Amino acid sequence: MMVKDIQITPAKTSKIHDVDFNNLQFGRVFTDHMFECDFKDGKWSNPKIVPYAPLTMEPSARVFHYGQAVFEGMKAYRDDNDELFLFRPDENYARINKSAARLAIPEFPEDFFFEGLKQLILLDKDWVKKGWGNSLYIRPFVIATEGAIAASPAEEYKFMIILSPAQAYYSQEVRVLFAEKFSRSADGGVGYAKAAGNYAAQFYPTSLAHERGYQQIIWTDASTHEYLEEAGTMNIFFRVNDKLITAPNNDRILDGVTRKSVIQLAQDAGVDVEVRRVPVAEIKEAARNGSLKEIFGAGTAAVINPIAGFEHAGSTYELPKMEDSYATLFKEKLMNIQYNKAEDPHNWRFKIS
Amino acid sequence: MMVKDIQITPAKTSKIHDVDFNNLQFGRVFTDHMFECDFKDGKWSNPKIVPYAPLTMEPSARVFHYGQAVFEGMKAYRDDNDELFLFRPDENYARINKSAARLAIPEFPEDFFFEGLKQLILLDKDWVKKGWGNSLYIRPFVIATEGAIAASPAEEYKFMIILSPAQAYYSQEVRVLFAEKFSRSADGGVGYAKAAGNYAAQFYPTSLAHERGYQQIIWTDASTHEYLEEAGTMNIFFRVNDKLITAPNNDRILDGVTRKSVIQLAQDAGVDVEVRRVPVAEIKEAARNGSLKEIFGAGTAAVINPIAGFEHAGSTYELPKMEDSYATLFKEKLMNIQYNKAEDPHNWRFKIS
Repeated sequence: MMVKDIQITPAKTSKIHDVDFNNLQFGRVFTDHMFECDFKDGKWSNPKIVPYAPLTMEPSARVFHYGQAVFEGMKAYRDDNDELFLFRPDENYARINKSAARLAIPEFPEDFFFEGLKQLILLDKDWVKKGWGNSLYIRPFVIATEGAIAASPAEEYKFMIILSPAQAYYSQEVRVLFAEKFSRSADGGVGYAKAAGNYAAQFYPTSLAHERGYQQIIWTDASTHEYLEEAGTMNIFFRVNDKLITAPNNDRILDGVTRKSVIQLAQDAGVDVEVRRVPVAEIKEAARNGSLKEIFGAGTAAVINPIAGFEHAGSTYELPKMEDSYATLFKEKLMNIQYNKAEDPHNWRFKIS
Repeated sequence: MMVKDIQITPAKTSKIHDVDFNNLQFGRVFTDHMFECDFKDGKWSNPKIVPYAPLTMEPSARVFHYGQAVFEGMKAYRDDNDELFLFRPDENYARINKSAARLAIPEFPEDFFFEGLKQLILLDKDWVKKGWGNSLYIRPFVIATEGAIAASPAEEYKFMIILSPAQAYYSQEVRVLFAEKFSRSADGGVGYAKAAGNYAAQFYPTSLAHERGYQQIIWTDASTHEYLEEAGTMNIFFRVNDKLITAPNNDRILDGVTRKSVIQLAQDAGVDVEVRRVPVAEIKEAARNGSLKEIFGAGTAAVINPIAGFEHAGSTYELPKMEDSYATLFKEKLMNIQYNKAEDPHNWRFKIS
């Protein structure tokens, strides 16, 4: 599509000089503009970029009552030559529509998505800061706006993209609980979708974990709690000796872009990768006999997040401190591609221009 | 609490004369006022009634991204002497806070809830129409309003009550699918809560059922799909010979107010009620041998909704047309209490004055 199809209303002034880019809290500061596009009368139309501002919503909008909403998370990176890149945005585009289908939300057109994304980032390009770990977090999302509280799919939606500058994610020592009672999603449910309701459902169990000193929960299958699945905002990898193990995608587990990139990078590096169900009992036994070397999470926000220990069934396990960890290796490899510091054999970088 | 604690701003004009009360679609028309109360700085404060109007929301409000939202459904009734009643509102109050707790939303104060509800309904009392089956549908709900896209509980919320006039619900012949693949909720999940995300998750499977000529799905347990649970907006009862069977509450099934009222009325009437797991196989066998007399749903919107037939595993089953059905009997008993036409031995009616 042609650029002229997106109507752009520039902000009169920029907020950028009020922002302390060295003290950013994740997801609290937004750039000067936002992209929006409405679904009405059976079609997406009127894509536009406008100054970032509050929305006007009917109190009866279905998103408030029935959670009909999906989202994506992506990042833009600035390299040393001031060129801007996205990382595998085609995956995010495909996934938001997969999520939308499961939530009975109409598919969003590919040209609107990519043109909206590019125009918006170019308009707010000064917000993408140079430097290892700095990025612009990109949040595309769709909400059901129709004002009617019948429990059925809406006939009106808003697709939006908002942008939030992000710093390198310096993670504290993360310890996790393996879930024994609470669940994230059911077989035949919406766990594989980035559906809004999947996240709020985790807040209470996670707050109980916090009270006990654990930062996250690794969810297990709801039926037996015997298999490790994902961490809600990250997929999870286990290193047993030099083998890397992660759970397969299914209708409960998000098909993470960082996850599939780590699998590819590990295979490229000649690491033995097993994508299969991961029994809790196997990981506990590996922790006891010393063959469990690492656990790490993989997701867009944290990239790769090493886990220092876990608790299950009242027993705690500490992981060894690895000098040459896979977590560090694959995080570096991934970020080198994202920041245009390495070859990109799989064509994951997407230059914005 | 004293009435003066709720600040009331009356609407300058009423929309009531524009409304055709004989042609109401469910949940599309709202009254002149709404109740709202904000949670900020750790407390609920500033309860107020204002003219019904759109909300102003940050695009980053957590409800849009993470589905942190819960709601209730209740009704107000007008009797022949123009007195107004609610039905067991204490149950809805208890449940919205039970739902809120599971979604990490702060509990809403009891005095604000009841005083807000009463003042709002009294202000819009002309919208509660006399006549069998007419009612004012009441929708209390809570949404996470804080503008921050971190995946953690919000620190700011809005509690609202909106009102929508409703007519008697004349149900068409309802046929249902017993779920074989899709699921509504997991053990250890949020199925027992009126969490917004539980509803959108059902839209797509239900749309597939519609395409095949079924109006609703009766959900089965996610682990085995061998036990019948609830219908998403209704609890489900099975009459086998003269016995009434319904699934027990658990963390997947909503603790319905109409459900528990029907159980009580059935027991009062000397009917044998079994609250236990309901195997799909048992119900199919009962349909085959003729002992399955009725299936009906029970919920606030439809009160009691008889089901004419069902499909499971490619086989369809028609239910007999009963002259003296439990569905008709208990619907009448329930509505007689709701409309102040019968004794109220359990003190379910709540007079608004």
